[in-house]
Amino acid sequence: MRVIIPFAGSMPKTRLSDVLSLSERRSFARAMLQDVLAAVQAAGHEPVLLTPSPLDSDVSTIVDDQPLSGAVNAVLSDSDLPVTVLMADLPLITATDLAQFVETQGDVVLAPGLGGGTNALVVRDRSFAVDYHGTSYLDHLETAQEMGLDVSEATSWRLTVDIDEPPDLAEVLLHNDGHASRWLAERGFSMVKSTGRANAIRTRDVQSQSSN
Amino acid sequence: MRVIIPFAGSMPKTRLSDVLSLSERRSFARAMLQDVLAAVQAAGHEPVLLTPSPLDSDVSTIVDDQPLSGAVNAVLSDSDLPVTVLMADLPLITATDLAQFVETQGDVVLAPGLGGGTNALVVRDRSFAVDYHGTSYLDHLETAQEMGLDVSEATSWRLTVDIDEPPDLAEVLLHNDGHASRWLAERGFSMVKSTGRANAIRTRDVQSQSSN
Repeated sequence: MRVIIPFAGSMPKTRLSDVLSLSERRSFARAMLQDVLAAVQAAGHEPVLLTPSPLDSDVSTIVDDQPLSGAVNAVLSDSDLPVTVLMADLPLITATDLAQFVETQGDVVLAPGLGGGTNALVVRDRSFAVDYHGTSYLDHLETAQEMGLDVSEATSWRLTVDIDEPPDLAEVLLHNDGHASRWLAERGFSMVKSTGRANAIRTRDVQSQSSN
Repeated sequence: MRVIIPFAGSMPKTRLSDVLSLSERRSFARAMLQDVLAAVQAAGHEPVLLTPSPLDSDVSTIVDDQPLSGAVNAVLSDSDLPVTVLMADLPLITATDLAQFVETQGDVVLAPGLGGGTNALVVRDRSFAVDYHGTSYLDHLETAQEMGLDVSEATSWRLTVDIDEPPDLAEVLLHNDGHASRWLAERGFSMVKSTGRANAIRTRDVQSQSSN
């Protein structure tokens, strides 16, 4: 199945600005994308990047400079269904998660993100359109139900835990063994645990390398 | 199967102190526990509370004033296996999640929590003991692997998203329709969405009611 992966290359991950510079955020977003692409390919599916401007990548790419929802809806309209849409900030996912998600039955299958977003969806009915504004998970659920569509919820926590904010970086160090966790380790991040949840803290000051 | 639910009644949920008073935290912890008990019972399993001091509850209760790990290990030693240990701050779980978790094969089945904790485990081998200190998920995984045990990871995001910190309250409003979300709504919390993740904010100042 085609797995559409929206990727905003130039100003990614703004909520990580307190801990990563712009060039680091671009590089880290690429590292997470590599892990997501690897999971999709290992599951035997076909990744397609959806970006607002051309990217240097070997992966099939659709360039559309509309805002996210419009660009995704254009792809849904133009595609043979089913199609999966998967966010690029999910470096915890494995091929198994992806395979199970894509096989989940339903006209629409939704994977919630932390804080009410929609991290991934499978669309099997042409009448459904996305709107990522607001608490999109609840909105997508309600819209699909109002349309009489059969909606399912994804189960995997690895699809729910997206990497958007500084506390999320601990999840990468805890549960990813690919590009994203190596990237953080090489930039001096390590896990610090006191009481409560572990945090990923930059304990060494490592110069950002423009080659990465 | 017996499902042991540790419940620290007197000083619960200290990391919610910025948004809830002590009496509110006690009451909210009870509301979350009710939802967890309902899921366990609806799945056809037998909940057993594990508490440091006697509780006013209809549910079977083991009183043990040791710290958490010691108390859980005492229960594991004294029980016919398998046994499930499930945290009380998981009000998003459904009977389906619980049933699937308990049926997951493995000498030890681990459900990670956000930030590296262990939200639930199924124990089928008597040689395994818990240690909740530190990043217990990784420690439990490593210990079980070193012992040559067959370890599995739980899948459900509803078992991973525990309610410990103020941002987690949004997850309750988003994904729980039981006691916990009603409790928050009655205390004046509602969901506020700007950019990024939704937050549960107390938008009405509602007097805490000692009867709840």
